[in-house]
Amino acid sequence: MSRNPKPLHLNAFLMSVGHHEASWRLPESDPYAGWDVAHYRNLARIAERGKLDSLFLADSPVQQGDPGQRPTGKLEPTVLLTALAGVTEHIGLIATASTSYNEPYNLARRFASLDHVSGGRAGWNIVTTAGADAARNFGLDDVPPHHERYERAAEFVEVSRKLWDSWADDAVVADKAAGVHADPAKVRAIHHRGRYFRVDGPLNVPRSPQGYPLLVQAGSSEDGRRFAARHAEAVFTAQQTLAEAQAFYRDLKRRAAALGRDPDGIKVLPGIVPILGDTEAEARELDAELERLILPEYAKRQLAARFRLDPDTLDLDGPLPDDLPAEAEIEGAKSRYTLIVDLARREHLTVRQLIARLGGGRGHRTFTGTPVQVADAIEDWFDHGAADGFNIMPAVLPSGLTAFVDRVVPILQERGRFRTGYRGRTLREHYGLARPADQYADVTDRETA
Amino acid sequence: MSRNPKPLHLNAFLMSVGHHEASWRLPESDPYAGWDVAHYRNLARIAERGKLDSLFLADSPVQQGDPGQRPTGKLEPTVLLTALAGVTEHIGLIATASTSYNEPYNLARRFASLDHVSGGRAGWNIVTTAGADAARNFGLDDVPPHHERYERAAEFVEVSRKLWDSWADDAVVADKAAGVHADPAKVRAIHHRGRYFRVDGPLNVPRSPQGYPLLVQAGSSEDGRRFAARHAEAVFTAQQTLAEAQAFYRDLKRRAAALGRDPDGIKVLPGIVPILGDTEAEARELDAELERLILPEYAKRQLAARFRLDPDTLDLDGPLPDDLPAEAEIEGAKSRYTLIVDLARREHLTVRQLIARLGGGRGHRTFTGTPVQVADAIEDWFDHGAADGFNIMPAVLPSGLTAFVDRVVPILQERGRFRTGYRGRTLREHYGLARPADQYADVTDRETA
Repeated sequence: MSRNPKPLHLNAFLMSVGHHEASWRLPESDPYAGWDVAHYRNLARIAERGKLDSLFLADSPVQQGDPGQRPTGKLEPTVLLTALAGVTEHIGLIATASTSYNEPYNLARRFASLDHVSGGRAGWNIVTTAGADAARNFGLDDVPPHHERYERAAEFVEVSRKLWDSWADDAVVADKAAGVHADPAKVRAIHHRGRYFRVDGPLNVPRSPQGYPLLVQAGSSEDGRRFAARHAEAVFTAQQTLAEAQAFYRDLKRRAAALGRDPDGIKVLPGIVPILGDTEAEARELDAELERLILPEYAKRQLAARFRLDPDTLDLDGPLPDDLPAEAEIEGAKSRYTLIVDLARREHLTVRQLIARLGGGRGHRTFTGTPVQVADAIEDWFDHGAADGFNIMPAVLPSGLTAFVDRVVPILQERGRFRTGYRGRTLREHYGLARPADQYADVTDRETA
Repeated sequence: MSRNPKPLHLNAFLMSVGHHEASWRLPESDPYAGWDVAHYRNLARIAERGKLDSLFLADSPVQQGDPGQRPTGKLEPTVLLTALAGVTEHIGLIATASTSYNEPYNLARRFASLDHVSGGRAGWNIVTTAGADAARNFGLDDVPPHHERYERAAEFVEVSRKLWDSWADDAVVADKAAGVHADPAKVRAIHHRGRYFRVDGPLNVPRSPQGYPLLVQAGSSEDGRRFAARHAEAVFTAQQTLAEAQAFYRDLKRRAAALGRDPDGIKVLPGIVPILGDTEAEARELDAELERLILPEYAKRQLAARFRLDPDTLDLDGPLPDDLPAEAEIEGAKSRYTLIVDLARREHLTVRQLIARLGGGRGHRTFTGTPVQVADAIEDWFDHGAADGFNIMPAVLPSGLTAFVDRVVPILQERGRFRTGYRGRTLREHYGLARPADQYADVTDRETA
């Protein structure tokens, strides 16, 4: 078997008691775990035992879903990851935060602080936050248009990077005798004046171990790909088939190269929902049990909302209607919408079958099988130009993460695919990415702050 | 000696390498400590060893002071306190956050999350953030007027409390068999519509161990007192003389009672900067050393800025000018401004002498002496209706906190004044305050979220 010399990267996507919609109904699941730091500490330790590159928390500043039908309670990701930094030493910590409902000065400070507190392990999954319900928590009647949200996101990242670079790495001179703490020429006001933001700076946090957090992105729409190609160092993506994943991978690398970036400087990590069993039959049994626990009427309402349809127009045992809206009419999760429609049509799924597939991973690829089969599936996409690594989304937590770390990771390690120990200390080092230079490093005569 | 049966409360106000402006220039001080989580972990453990009620971090979303002349680098308080929650078990964790430059949904989430992560130890020092320089990090040209900032703060707290109460304590029913996670009638949209905020809610964090964080306030202006009397459960204040501290204490308790609150439900904690020595002479020597390390020209510029004067009009060896602005003309730290003018005039201080006094505690009461003298000073104010406890602001950190905990606290314990162990688990329990009820508890037919 040919050996791919490039390193494989694995991220653990943590979500309450698992990515399957119905996982909380399993006998083993703690229904209060979603906002219990002890549950997440346990998950973080398991992931670090598996030498995974990073942990990741999704987020939206709104209650997602019906609290009657699923666990909606959670903790704010920068707070939770700071807590997890204290019980881990190496693993990277990637928090989602919205550019639509934050101010750059506040968010840049929090990520710089998390990077300091964790010794260089912070990552920021940059999201623009879809949905009118989130907008209505921030004084708006509806979500700003998709393109405008991405425009604001780009300026938000620009301001943040200026703030993170406002202190030179060697700004602090600490000359006690002379009474000079920092070189004032190396702590620089940024005087940003843009369309969305005016920020004077400098940040009140010195430059952090990584310079700034790893920049992650997860949008796969046209706006999302353009944004990722310019800014992202890692990309989470939902892909159902090898061919689609290869096309996405090639497209993103090509876009990055066209912008003058090293295509290897942007890591593509498709999501995979492994449903593991000692035998295929055992894995299928777990899958079937989870499917039985889905609440079909609730899931139908959720699907109808995504499609902007009256739930009554969906027949659980029939196909999707023909006259669905075009992607252009969808204001959020555009590419996910198209993926779901394509999946249902390609596999001729009934609404009930589609719900079962989505319940497992909300559009991410579900893979049910033995540890060897999951390791094979990972190698297959990795070796065929579809992935630099994977976003591991266990259907059930903690048991699914334990199974992946204890059963799949050792196979990947034996095959020489995955690290057996951490070499670096920072999140960027795990992903083989260089520490970014200070953009003001060559500017000698800037105005001092 | 008469015994005051009411419990004494002590808060450790942590600030980089100490509250004295020049502490970073001492040989013992680590000039990088201000943004080093290890430094703060050490301080937190020392304070918990002393059974102190709480830790406190001040904050403003702006660089404060000239980075050339003092350490301006720091970490964001909710992140830093989350890290400290992981190395402590009992001590309360009070973070400052601005109501002028945050959104209620975001901040309410972070504090609820900190309260969950810490097992009920979160406190929020509510500030309106003075200064045009902070405003210029958030798209504004100047700081909003004082009264308007307080109006927004009041609505901000109102929204936050609605969000914190949006989940009933018993909302989660976790009925796996029926597929009901929470009782939807107990997860309530808030539909807030106010002058500054429109927020639908509910929060996506279930009600936290304390219900919501302890509400702390530190403004002593007319607006500040009115706000504190209505909302605060603990108040930090700068008071120079017993008579002034008594008057402030009486005024705040009277205002709270007039609003129908139990006056004992608002704890008044004046700041004290203890400069400790085994002998008085040793304490004075440390004080004198710190005074020698002050950079007088820099301090003069800072003082001039506070007074809105040209620094050249201040003579280091002369008195303050007669024609200073009235408090009404000052847009931030109003009461501190008046305190400083009064202090200089009452004690006939030269500008240089005033700078020395302010360098020690920025207007807080500095007390130089032996552990017994410091304990006496604490008892004196406590027994004479000036304080429910103290905000301990060591001039030098960690050594000043170590000295206070190891030398002063045991005296207060021996005298039966201070706890020798924690009885409660939450911050409110340490302060003898009741867990707040859910404001929607009696509402049975509210719209569900």
